[in-house]
Amino acid sequence: MHFASDNTAGVAPAILAALSAANAGHVPSYGADSLSAEVVARLRAIFEAPEAAVYLVPTGTAANALSCAALTQPWGAIFCHRNAHIEEDECGAPEFYTGGAKLVLVDGADAKMDPGALRRIIAHTGRGGIHNVQRGMVSLTNATEAGAVYTPAEVAAICAIARDFKLPVHMDGARFANALVSAGCTPAEMTWKAGVEALSFGGTKNGCMGVEAVILFNPARAHEFETRRKRGGHLFSKHRFLAAQMAAYLEGDLWLDLARHANAMAARLSAGIRTVPGAHLLHPTDANEVFAAFPRGAHRRLHAAGAAYYLWPFDQSLEGDAAEALSARMVTSWATTEAEVETFLAHLK
Amino acid sequence: MHFASDNTAGVAPAILAALSAANAGHVPSYGADSLSAEVVARLRAIFEAPEAAVYLVPTGTAANALSCAALTQPWGAIFCHRNAHIEEDECGAPEFYTGGAKLVLVDGADAKMDPGALRRIIAHTGRGGIHNVQRGMVSLTNATEAGAVYTPAEVAAICAIARDFKLPVHMDGARFANALVSAGCTPAEMTWKAGVEALSFGGTKNGCMGVEAVILFNPARAHEFETRRKRGGHLFSKHRFLAAQMAAYLEGDLWLDLARHANAMAARLSAGIRTVPGAHLLHPTDANEVFAAFPRGAHRRLHAAGAAYYLWPFDQSLEGDAAEALSARMVTSWATTEAEVETFLAHLK
Amino acid sequence: MHFASDNTAGVAPAILAALSAANAGHVPSYGADSLSAEVVARLRAIFEAPEAAVYLVPTGTAANALSCAALTQPWGAIFCHRNAHIEEDECGAPEFYTGGAKLVLVDGADAKMDPGALRRIIAHTGRGGIHNVQRGMVSLTNATEAGAVYTPAEVAAICAIARDFKLPVHMDGARFANALVSAGCTPAEMTWKAGVEALSFGGTKNGCMGVEAVILFNPARAHEFETRRKRGGHLFSKHRFLAAQMAAYLEGDLWLDLARHANAMAARLSAGIRTVPGAHLLHPTDANEVFAAFPRGAHRRLHAAGAAYYLWPFDQSLEGDAAEALSARMVTSWATTEAEVETFLAHLK
Amino acid sequence: MHFASDNTAGVAPAILAALSAANAGHVPSYGADSLSAEVVARLRAIFEAPEAAVYLVPTGTAANALSCAALTQPWGAIFCHRNAHIEEDECGAPEFYTGGAKLVLVDGADAKMDPGALRRIIAHTGRGGIHNVQRGMVSLTNATEAGAVYTPAEVAAICAIARDFKLPVHMDGARFANALVSAGCTPAEMTWKAGVEALSFGGTKNGCMGVEAVILFNPARAHEFETRRKRGGHLFSKHRFLAAQMAAYLEGDLWLDLARHANAMAARLSAGIRTVPGAHLLHPTDANEVFAAFPRGAHRRLHAAGAAYYLWPFDQSLEGDAAEALSARMVTSWATTEAEVETFLAHLK
Repeated sequence: MHFASDNTAGVAPAILAALSAANAGHVPSYGADSLSAEVVARLRAIFEAPEAAVYLVPTGTAANALSCAALTQPWGAIFCHRNAHIEEDECGAPEFYTGGAKLVLVDGADAKMDPGALRRIIAHTGRGGIHNVQRGMVSLTNATEAGAVYTPAEVAAICAIARDFKLPVHMDGARFANALVSAGCTPAEMTWKAGVEALSFGGTKNGCMGVEAVILFNPARAHEFETRRKRGGHLFSKHRFLAAQMAAYLEGDLWLDLARHANAMAARLSAGIRTVPGAHLLHPTDANEVFAAFPRGAHRRLHAAGAAYYLWPFDQSLEGDAAEALSARMVTSWATTEAEVETFLAHLK
Repeated sequence: MHFASDNTAGVAPAILAALSAANAGHVPSYGADSLSAEVVARLRAIFEAPEAAVYLVPTGTAANALSCAALTQPWGAIFCHRNAHIEEDECGAPEFYTGGAKLVLVDGADAKMDPGALRRIIAHTGRGGIHNVQRGMVSLTNATEAGAVYTPAEVAAICAIARDFKLPVHMDGARFANALVSAGCTPAEMTWKAGVEALSFGGTKNGCMGVEAVILFNPARAHEFETRRKRGGHLFSKHRFLAAQMAAYLEGDLWLDLARHANAMAARLSAGIRTVPGAHLLHPTDANEVFAAFPRGAHRRLHAAGAAYYLWPFDQSLEGDAAEALSARMVTSWATTEAEVETFLAHLK
Repeated sequence: MHFASDNTAGVAPAILAALSAANAGHVPSYGADSLSAEVVARLRAIFEAPEAAVYLVPTGTAANALSCAALTQPWGAIFCHRNAHIEEDECGAPEFYTGGAKLVLVDGADAKMDPGALRRIIAHTGRGGIHNVQRGMVSLTNATEAGAVYTPAEVAAICAIARDFKLPVHMDGARFANALVSAGCTPAEMTWKAGVEALSFGGTKNGCMGVEAVILFNPARAHEFETRRKRGGHLFSKHRFLAAQMAAYLEGDLWLDLARHANAMAARLSAGIRTVPGAHLLHPTDANEVFAAFPRGAHRRLHAAGAAYYLWPFDQSLEGDAAEALSARMVTSWATTEAEVETFLAHLK
Repeated sequence: MHFASDNTAGVAPAILAALSAANAGHVPSYGADSLSAEVVARLRAIFEAPEAAVYLVPTGTAANALSCAALTQPWGAIFCHRNAHIEEDECGAPEFYTGGAKLVLVDGADAKMDPGALRRIIAHTGRGGIHNVQRGMVSLTNATEAGAVYTPAEVAAICAIARDFKLPVHMDGARFANALVSAGCTPAEMTWKAGVEALSFGGTKNGCMGVEAVILFNPARAHEFETRRKRGGHLFSKHRFLAAQMAAYLEGDLWLDLARHANAMAARLSAGIRTVPGAHLLHPTDANEVFAAFPRGAHRRLHAAGAAYYLWPFDQSLEGDAAEALSARMVTSWATTEAEVETFLAHLK
């Protein structure tokens, strides 16, 4: 019962196999190999964005922080949700890469920015001219940190506000595939057609070993991005092995299949939880994360049975009244089995 | 005839196999898995340094820049050779990670810092008190960018100067294994016993896919290093796959065997070149890089035959007088074959 | 009727005269003159802190940002009030000088941090280990941005929380003199005796031309501070003129007299406003700032009469219903006259 | 005999008087006062540059570092002379403000960059594509750190090389007035007509208390400069006092008169030294600095008589053979008297 995170799973077999296949012979380093070129072409095709600049990096933090650095100046405000990964889980990487930009936090249910709140906060920021940080960019996360998914229309609504203030929009898509299959739209509809300028296109959480693509739909800052990637230590010498992962991930829509599986497992878990007396969901289960509250007694049973997941927030205790509800996060992945879900539900009931 | 760089080679079979072996099941992420712990223990044992802090990162630039950031303040001078990788090949990564430290360049034959020159420059830096950058740290590269190897005694001589000024010493060991088997000493003798405080222990150029270890023999800055690694986007979520590479690399002294092979191929190439009329070596061939000058006509033959290597410096031309000597760099690797060397020599003659 | 800010006033006559007096002859530059040494000694005596490191800088932003950089690492959280000057009015200077620290915002009435809220937020920050920014420091402002004053006991309560988490405390004392005469305690009681480690000791707003002192009660980071000041471009070559201002400011307790006058003018204004029907105070008038709401009609009369002050927040309009209350900030200074106050009140009624 | 530096002198009387004159009444802060506007207009007129952006800052280090930050990206190389102030005397301020740019050092006699050397180094930098720092900008100092003056034609030659590589040029004019009166050209001829894009226009060393202007002849980065100045803590609240200094400095060509005097004193000193047996000049005396070597015995006599000046470099000793020549730097200023010069020469002979 492995629900701690989608990154405790291993690598999907086809992706692992691709590493071996890519190992033959000598190839040029630093991305000058043909497989790397092919991946760029594939992502451009998938996103219907023939001009987009595409770069591979090994981690989601690198993808996000480099994207922010490309989109805002050091004195810019990055408008994002209070629970965004860039705010809560990257040890200040965006501040580091941007040279000291300020994350300005926006509230909203299910870790989606509330459009009205976003507009008010952008308007407020920079009202004092040179004395304040300046308006810089907007970053939204899809799927969100609460497992919800912005629809293309919701993305467009955020982007429209940004556009009113002439701000570029970044999407943290560490779980982009999960969001996409949930929303049932095209990659283009979810991104540049809705107004997104830069995307962190996640691979690692969805079956890769360690690779993310940054897609700059506006390639004006491509060279800058390249220098920042190199300067950040994220340009791989044996770049073919980043490319091989991504190529296999995209091949035959594997990325969508893996995400569909993870989402289906989450849906099954979520549906099961809803039938348990005393349990309830805390957020909609749009993608591959389930947030639910259920009695401490059930948590104890699950822990005793070896279930791995986080009490969320962390600072809750298994000690205490058995009937009291504790909230938790369960994450499914490409590797989650129906049996795991059913075993979990059996202990829960 | 692949002599462009040791990073155009693939991954050694045992290391590739280790990735598959590590793929089974779910394991904790971010380095909390048992394989990651094992690698730390192994490196501590190999270096006879039970207290050392050990961290894995994906690239050599990350290893070097993070090491510099841990050893010097933003207002510090980093004393290094004029041709050091941190000066010439990292697009300013050390400046970025340190928050603006200044690389102060030292001359010396074969890309080794001349001890007298180093002492004079350190003494000169900081003479003006608060108006100058302050003395920060020393970084030396072993094997050097010219393919030479500092002996333990030479390392100790550099470290003694640093110690006179109370400066810590970093070793860029992107080709540490090649240097070690060349010098015929122990890892401890080459590093902390000679006075080195932090080592970038290379894996990628010597048969790994993309992994380097940073070893802090003085663990006082371990927590700082961890935050910097995370903040730099270099903490892998599926960390087991960095660990698996390193574990296989160390297993049964594979790392030393791979380096011995690469060095032997370079020695064979070097010996062959010395016998060619009109050709001569530019630096000693201590490790796996050969620097040599030979007639333009021979370069033309080699290029026509598909040999891959760099004219060094880059700005020489194959056009012109066939008898004129052009200088070149040939790098061997774990994957270089005797046949490649012999074919190269055959075209050269 | 000059109530826009205390920095629209000029320089107190004795301080201006001191500049002329300091102009005679040649003296060593960069703070090596005797007047600079004298100022350090005077501030140490006033604060009963013989070991304190004392540095002069030209602006409050420099004093605050350099203090933050000395007290926290780039990956640290700076806990401060949501309306702190370092958050709202310095265009990201703390982020710039610290190398990307994150300001984590705390609520509380009258721009004082609520101790309970502070404790909860500190506890929450860093709960996720290396994934979050780390706990760095606490910064409080006295007098606050809402014109209130922390008593020494209130400062001590904040510092006690910080101490529980081993965090240093900085006090932004741009209006320190106003706070001190309001609280009726000694400089030491307001600062290091209550647990403050670093103080931005304001001069500019209280009658100087452009000088603030940074006092590090713990001098361990003195050298670091000096390098940061130089590196930030804040070390004056003709340093005697910063020292001359500060010496005159301290001489014969001028600083306290100027602050007492400013506070008295604010108290008079505040008392007058309280008697006006339809007007009310928004915060206590502890120092030299008055925050009040009164009808739009009165604002119109005041503006027509040339009164200078800010609607607070800025985004209110003089257009609209005359009876509706608008909120405003009125700041008094060493140069405010009773006549100005009375004229203002006359237009208000 | 005050020849240690031009910053040990005080403030020219007319400039000191202007501070008092500017003190009357309340005026808007942060540069929104009329005197500040007037200064901008005056500098634009003097430089025949009606579109230029003009900003005042308190120190030369701030002027230079902010200018560099406006002209180059963090990954840029700043080409400057090996002895430039930005390299040797600012504790890494350019690295700090630019976010980690690299100063790449160029040789040349009299602290002027040799054009051929500059061209070679620029060509060399960036040859390796993304692996190197990129070409960023050129910074030259006029008058140089060796007391020499670039003529407009020499400035134009440097700028032409920069233009070939599409690089902007900054001039560190901490002693701009001294250079200008020496060259006998117009301010425009010395700067933008020769190809300079940004100028640090010095005031402090030439009789001001602490003010420099940054003039951006290309105003495209004006807003960026403003945010950087604020963020660096260099935007004065009581800005009128920076403006007052600069206004008085410019009034009636005072700045040129002060510089002419300083230059004349240096010329007199230089001429005198040339007549002393055993003494010789080390650099031409184009402006207000004299570099000369003369016997240790003469240095001892001068020190005994209280003459203030620096042995240059610092690490020479008054102990030793009286006949041996030691080199020294003597700086004159607006405040130097003929009597000081003559007394110095009398002791020298």
